[in-house]
Amino acid sequence: MTGSPAVTLYPLGGLGEIGLNCMALVSGDSMIVVDCGLMFPDDSLFGIDVVIPRFDFILQNRDKLKGIVLTHGHEDHIGALPWLMRSCDAPLYASSFTLALAGKKLEEHGLKEFTTCLPVSAGDTVTLGDFKVTFFPVCHSIVHGFALGIETPAGRIVHTGDFKIDRNPLDGHATDLDAIKRFAGDGAMLLLSDSTNAEREGFALTEREIKAALGDIFATCSGRIVVTLFSSHIQRMQEIYDLAHATGRKVAVSGKSLFTNIEIARELKHLRVPPGTEASLEELASLPDEQVVLLVTGSQGEPLSALSRLAYGEHRQVKIQKGDTVILSSRFIPGNIRAITRLINRLYKLGAEVLYERVQAIHASGHAHADELRLMLKTVSPKFFIPIHGEYRHLVKHARIAVSCGVAPERALVIEDGQPVTFAEGLIRLEDAIPVEHIYVDGKGVGDVGVTVLKERQLLAGEGLVIVVLVVDEKSGELTFGPNILSKGFVFEQHYSHVLEDAKCIVLDIYENVPPGQSDLLKERIRSALRRFFRKILERDPVVVPLVITL
Amino acid sequence: MTGSPAVTLYPLGGLGEIGLNCMALVSGDSMIVVDCGLMFPDDSLFGIDVVIPRFDFILQNRDKLKGIVLTHGHEDHIGALPWLMRSCDAPLYASSFTLALAGKKLEEHGLKEFTTCLPVSAGDTVTLGDFKVTFFPVCHSIVHGFALGIETPAGRIVHTGDFKIDRNPLDGHATDLDAIKRFAGDGAMLLLSDSTNAEREGFALTEREIKAALGDIFATCSGRIVVTLFSSHIQRMQEIYDLAHATGRKVAVSGKSLFTNIEIARELKHLRVPPGTEASLEELASLPDEQVVLLVTGSQGEPLSALSRLAYGEHRQVKIQKGDTVILSSRFIPGNIRAITRLINRLYKLGAEVLYERVQAIHASGHAHADELRLMLKTVSPKFFIPIHGEYRHLVKHARIAVSCGVAPERALVIEDGQPVTFAEGLIRLEDAIPVEHIYVDGKGVGDVGVTVLKERQLLAGEGLVIVVLVVDEKSGELTFGPNILSKGFVFEQHYSHVLEDAKCIVLDIYENVPPGQSDLLKERIRSALRRFFRKILERDPVVVPLVITL
Repeated sequence: MTGSPAVTLYPLGGLGEIGLNCMALVSGDSMIVVDCGLMFPDDSLFGIDVVIPRFDFILQNRDKLKGIVLTHGHEDHIGALPWLMRSCDAPLYASSFTLALAGKKLEEHGLKEFTTCLPVSAGDTVTLGDFKVTFFPVCHSIVHGFALGIETPAGRIVHTGDFKIDRNPLDGHATDLDAIKRFAGDGAMLLLSDSTNAEREGFALTEREIKAALGDIFATCSGRIVVTLFSSHIQRMQEIYDLAHATGRKVAVSGKSLFTNIEIARELKHLRVPPGTEASLEELASLPDEQVVLLVTGSQGEPLSALSRLAYGEHRQVKIQKGDTVILSSRFIPGNIRAITRLINRLYKLGAEVLYERVQAIHASGHAHADELRLMLKTVSPKFFIPIHGEYRHLVKHARIAVSCGVAPERALVIEDGQPVTFAEGLIRLEDAIPVEHIYVDGKGVGDVGVTVLKERQLLAGEGLVIVVLVVDEKSGELTFGPNILSKGFVFEQHYSHVLEDAKCIVLDIYENVPPGQSDLLKERIRSALRRFFRKILERDPVVVPLVITL
Repeated sequence: MTGSPAVTLYPLGGLGEIGLNCMALVSGDSMIVVDCGLMFPDDSLFGIDVVIPRFDFILQNRDKLKGIVLTHGHEDHIGALPWLMRSCDAPLYASSFTLALAGKKLEEHGLKEFTTCLPVSAGDTVTLGDFKVTFFPVCHSIVHGFALGIETPAGRIVHTGDFKIDRNPLDGHATDLDAIKRFAGDGAMLLLSDSTNAEREGFALTEREIKAALGDIFATCSGRIVVTLFSSHIQRMQEIYDLAHATGRKVAVSGKSLFTNIEIARELKHLRVPPGTEASLEELASLPDEQVVLLVTGSQGEPLSALSRLAYGEHRQVKIQKGDTVILSSRFIPGNIRAITRLINRLYKLGAEVLYERVQAIHASGHAHADELRLMLKTVSPKFFIPIHGEYRHLVKHARIAVSCGVAPERALVIEDGQPVTFAEGLIRLEDAIPVEHIYVDGKGVGDVGVTVLKERQLLAGEGLVIVVLVVDEKSGELTFGPNILSKGFVFEQHYSHVLEDAKCIVLDIYENVPPGQSDLLKERIRSALRRFFRKILERDPVVVPLVITL
């Protein structure tokens, strides 16, 4: 295939996990990057703030980089930008709303002034070296997201971004299948499509249905209404404002990320607050209950969020009372379920009624279900198909859907991060793997907290730590200080002073039986004897740190 | 109400959480305890093995204790027994199967020989002081569970245990509503009923439906079948054995807890293995794929379980291959979702097909849904109602269901652990609260790991630990050793030697500016300066332990 027009796709994240979405496309001397997302760490990643992709491939080819295209403004698509843009100065192409969110992020890292942000609108086409990228509006749980039509020397590629197909959309909330169909013509060369909900049959609920369900609640509630939702879900906020307006209520907002996003969305005219629908937190107190809506952060049970402060009675301006209705118009992300249900229980104890997805249809996923994926496949009618944005199981199932829609089985490719694929003259070739990785960010450290440090944190978390200090006189070999024992996260010392006393005796005993000068042997003996002792006496296995100082 | 026949109910666990089920009933000089369950810790309880109720109330009244009644053999109903039976010698009443599981547990703690276990059968009535307890079979996700009919001087109480109502039960798997109705007569004084699924409408799926779904899979699979399930779900195992028999397959078992429970169930004739359906793991290799069923532990993604070993290619006798079908016939417990989905992804990569509740109806909850709760309420027609076994939100919703079924609102009581209620002459009285608590068990320590130690573990887990050692000469005030710095779980030291060197300089500087002899001040200054320094340089906040030794 050498010499003929070719394009190679380099998946750097998002093919094999939910989040971390990032992909490079290379043709000749041109490279573009689509999305630059992060992933939030699971509980086993102690102390890690966020996970980002390994950018080596992009950086090694940075001279070819013509631009970074962002499909939409969610963290799993823009969140890793600050770590890429430190070492890279390509322009960003995205909707003005996505760029506003990305800009906030770059600003926090002091990178904004060095970044060129080029807003694009629906239908725009930009030329980036060998690539021509057209932006198609898609419906998703954030406004102003795009699917991409990418013309390459080897054929046309459709990249869906994250999408659903709202069959009966509220204003400005549709996926432009017609435009995508026009771009694909009699069939695109390749479709890259969102697999998040490939396991869910049928169609996702639509925002119109959600608005109707919320409308029923607004219509029947006589008390105050508190709503929490994802802070980037501008469309849902619009529904809340509209319903408040229709039922004679005013909306107050509590929580920083909501304030920020509402401000951006209003500025860009994605959110229209009906006149007379706004109130400050202070004004709420003077309004009758039936005129109050409070929009708050904290849908995932975050400890310091407004909802959490309400549930624990720690909100400065508002106290939850009998008659209040709290609506969680959001998904329970699995790792957060206990935190969220804890809040729900607290709110019930305070006398509130609490409504959530489990008991009422008040949230809709932003990702296409299987029937919507089929529609996209029929629309694009691709020769090749690669499922993206999903764990391995989602990719497998999406590939099956593609085959059921007429893609030849050998052309529905389940590949993972790091597996490049070249397309040329209607053929494909799997290239040698490139290094990809989940890079852990802890504070300012990027990638330095690896397996060793995490393992130590895990051990410390499990059973705590015991420090043993001895000072030995170098000449005489006499003990001049200690053994002293102190612990952190091990036992409540007052309860277990006898155990710690016994531990000292064990250390003394070892000290007397190790020849002077062999402090490594002494440390090793202390460590293993104490671990044995604690396991036997307490069935616990703390990290034991012996400090032997020879003076 | 003094002097008149009365009974007081003391909830010690399970009213306000899922798990930890334990309740005492007292009438005059008689006390009985119903269930003695544990709760598994969530991820925030670092290093905690299990959570148990506080037993002070029972122990303070142990002279009144006539017996401990166990409704069924799940951990959340029997798992805390070893910690109660250490200090208590009342007989245990339960089905032979429940007692066999409880006995295993007591044996592990060396308590079995001191415990009197009195097996009861469906329909039996035992007299325990002022109480007469009758045992009614109920359908649940474990065999041989009971609801209780408790005759007290103040009236009849029905305690459902955990139950569902299987309208179309497989053999021996029905809830005996007729017997409960006969016991309740024209209406019991009080119903205590399982609230776990109070938020779910309709009826739970039945085992007949699950068996049919599994049957479809068995009928169409031509490869090997691997099934994982809860190890105590004997009924489900029976279905697997029967389906294997019907489709010409043999069943091999891998995983200790399955072996143990199968052995007990077979001995007690709760599990009947059809002749010729058994195979050892070794024999599997010589069977054609279409004749193989492998029953394995690990439905929650437990790291060392058989399923986990299969998924990671570490199972000694069996390797997963293309064509295998793995069935997770079990619920995904929220805290375990990531571990389970990780296994599913691994299994797909090995070429297996994987089926689970999300994509196929192959698991049924063992707890009554709302319509079944209504049936129970209609059957018992109680004067008073107290929802049990649930978080606060479940209790609230179950109470509403009771009211919708005709219980007077003021007689549907949502109470929590520690709130005793007295029933006498058709009236109720809320007594003063008794102390209840979630007691944390870590190894052999019971209750010693409290908030302080957990907080330390949390801090250590988050950012690790830095130890600073100095030895100071008492007379001269000179530094004779150090400052030395070592860390655990903080940074990869090789990467950050310059940071640790700078930290040493900071410590030296502080040492020089603190007057000799003030070692507490010195420590405090070191701690706060290093925390400030690490926050600034690395945005991390490790636990800093300064050790200043004066010699």
